[in-house]
Amino acid sequence: MATATLTIDLSALCDNWRALNSMTACETAAVVKADGYGLGATRVARALQHAGVTRFFVAAAEEGASLREALGPGPEINVFSGHMAGDTDMISDMTLTPMLNSAEQMLRHFEALPSAPFGVQLDTGMNRLGMEPAEWASLRDIALELGPTLIMSHLACADDPGHPMNPQQLALFRELTDGLGVPRSLSATGGILLGEDYHFDLCRPGVGLYGGLPFVDATPVTRLDIPVIQTRSVLPGESVGYSNTWIAERPSRIATIAAGYADGIIRAMGEKAWLHSGDTPCKVVGRISMDMIGVDVTDLPEEPASLQLLGRHQSVDTLADAAGTIGYEILTSMGARYGRRYTS
Amino acid sequence: MATATLTIDLSALCDNWRALNSMTACETAAVVKADGYGLGATRVARALQHAGVTRFFVAAAEEGASLREALGPGPEINVFSGHMAGDTDMISDMTLTPMLNSAEQMLRHFEALPSAPFGVQLDTGMNRLGMEPAEWASLRDIALELGPTLIMSHLACADDPGHPMNPQQLALFRELTDGLGVPRSLSATGGILLGEDYHFDLCRPGVGLYGGLPFVDATPVTRLDIPVIQTRSVLPGESVGYSNTWIAERPSRIATIAAGYADGIIRAMGEKAWLHSGDTPCKVVGRISMDMIGVDVTDLPEEPASLQLLGRHQSVDTLADAAGTIGYEILTSMGARYGRRYTS
Repeated sequence: MATATLTIDLSALCDNWRALNSMTACETAAVVKADGYGLGATRVARALQHAGVTRFFVAAAEEGASLREALGPGPEINVFSGHMAGDTDMISDMTLTPMLNSAEQMLRHFEALPSAPFGVQLDTGMNRLGMEPAEWASLRDIALELGPTLIMSHLACADDPGHPMNPQQLALFRELTDGLGVPRSLSATGGILLGEDYHFDLCRPGVGLYGGLPFVDATPVTRLDIPVIQTRSVLPGESVGYSNTWIAERPSRIATIAAGYADGIIRAMGEKAWLHSGDTPCKVVGRISMDMIGVDVTDLPEEPASLQLLGRHQSVDTLADAAGTIGYEILTSMGARYGRRYTS
Repeated sequence: MATATLTIDLSALCDNWRALNSMTACETAAVVKADGYGLGATRVARALQHAGVTRFFVAAAEEGASLREALGPGPEINVFSGHMAGDTDMISDMTLTPMLNSAEQMLRHFEALPSAPFGVQLDTGMNRLGMEPAEWASLRDIALELGPTLIMSHLACADDPGHPMNPQQLALFRELTDGLGVPRSLSATGGILLGEDYHFDLCRPGVGLYGGLPFVDATPVTRLDIPVIQTRSVLPGESVGYSNTWIAERPSRIATIAAGYADGIIRAMGEKAWLHSGDTPCKVVGRISMDMIGVDVTDLPEEPASLQLLGRHQSVDTLADAAGTIGYEILTSMGARYGRRYTS
């Protein structure tokens, strides 16, 4: 067994959904795009469906189509990227609900599938997805007549509670949608934590479900154990790994573990990353290779069969710090070679 | 269609193999680990098999097993991580050839599968995989009696032709293997370029096949076209993307494209990355999101339906520079959501 094991705690995932759900008085959906933030959309969504989720969000119609196959006809599946050219059959056949982002998408949807459900995404300042206020003003009446299931927008700075962008986006969202009588959604995980003003009729957490910041009280969902291929003695002055970047300063025991940047262990973290054997931290030495990493296990009483990269001692966000990125990217980079084991 | 298209030129791949093969007088294998460096091991290996490759290398027995299913019983499949605990059935059932890395692996292999083929990997200074010289001295005679198919080692600094580590590893490899009468292999792509002293009986290129450095004369293999979800006007002073990191300085047109760090577009590259529409470069603006990226398309004469991240104007190595990494990581991070189109 030369591949690592990624253990995904579906109970913790559902606990996180329940915890986020209990913070609001509104409905709580679940975002399962990017293959369920790297943890397996099918298994993740089925567990959440069982826990009570009836509305899911994905990025692309292609993701929605495979989610529909996994979940059956019940839940509503919303597509953030809306109704793009070539999406019509998927949207229709798989009963997806596109969040329409532009006049172009609206026209496409209303012409091709005039009686099919849709939502509307408005831009309130992030300038990424959604209709601009002027565009919305000119198309609002037509859209409302056809009965959107949801009007939504997305916060650019919700991870930073004190950012002035948050109340600014909130005010614009209210201005664009107050009194329309259509269900509204503004917040993902960060927005839920900003308080009830941001909740409206539906919240749609993503990263918090998977145990990531900004949901500091999240229960960890992932554990990653990587087998040791072999362990060797290295004398002071000897180097380890590509380009000889690490030189031993003491007689050392170096374990080579069976995972690398091809498995999503971002190469940039290099020697800033640590692994654990039980409670003992063990430092990465040398460059991260494609399929292997050197780890200093000199201080362990015996040779480990595996070392842990994610788990009790290290979260996706700790690991993200080592790579100079965010927990989201650690999650979505989880390697295809890992054996995925689901517990509940 | 809200997902990008990764076009993989199998002719270019095979041309690269032929070019590398023509630089040596020895046999040339192919390394197809990490899902064929992210391009799809099955399709890549089948094309190379058709071009004449009869020996493949993978990192883990699990990879070897699925490669065997793809290729049938003909070619030899070598496993760099050797014979690990739990691998015996896979090695035996799928006729894999483990490169034994330690006394422990040797014992395991000889006890469990005494008549099954094997190679030996020696460590010549990288301190990552392979038997140490002292270990080899004590086990060599036993190993030789059982007839290894190959004795191999791996260069730590082959991408840097002037590095003193190269002749040092070469000398030690000779010392450990001269006169044994067993086929030998020391070089991957970088080693092939170091010249015939490094070639021995078999070379085993990886990254060069896929169009990456250090093989500067490689033919590009990958093209990545990302659809535009929508384009919007942004006024001076308006921000784009998470945390408002980009502020428009002129009236701008901003396209939101349908790929992000969940697709392996490393978040760290941020605004250092460029895309192309035809021959016109277009700069990334704002942070790379999980599923989307903002791109400044103000200077284009018309709104693009898609933008190109990899292709004629930008190689995996150019893109790697933007992310502060190496082309290898760009390749192995290629996203699962991309539609893969193979041309030949």
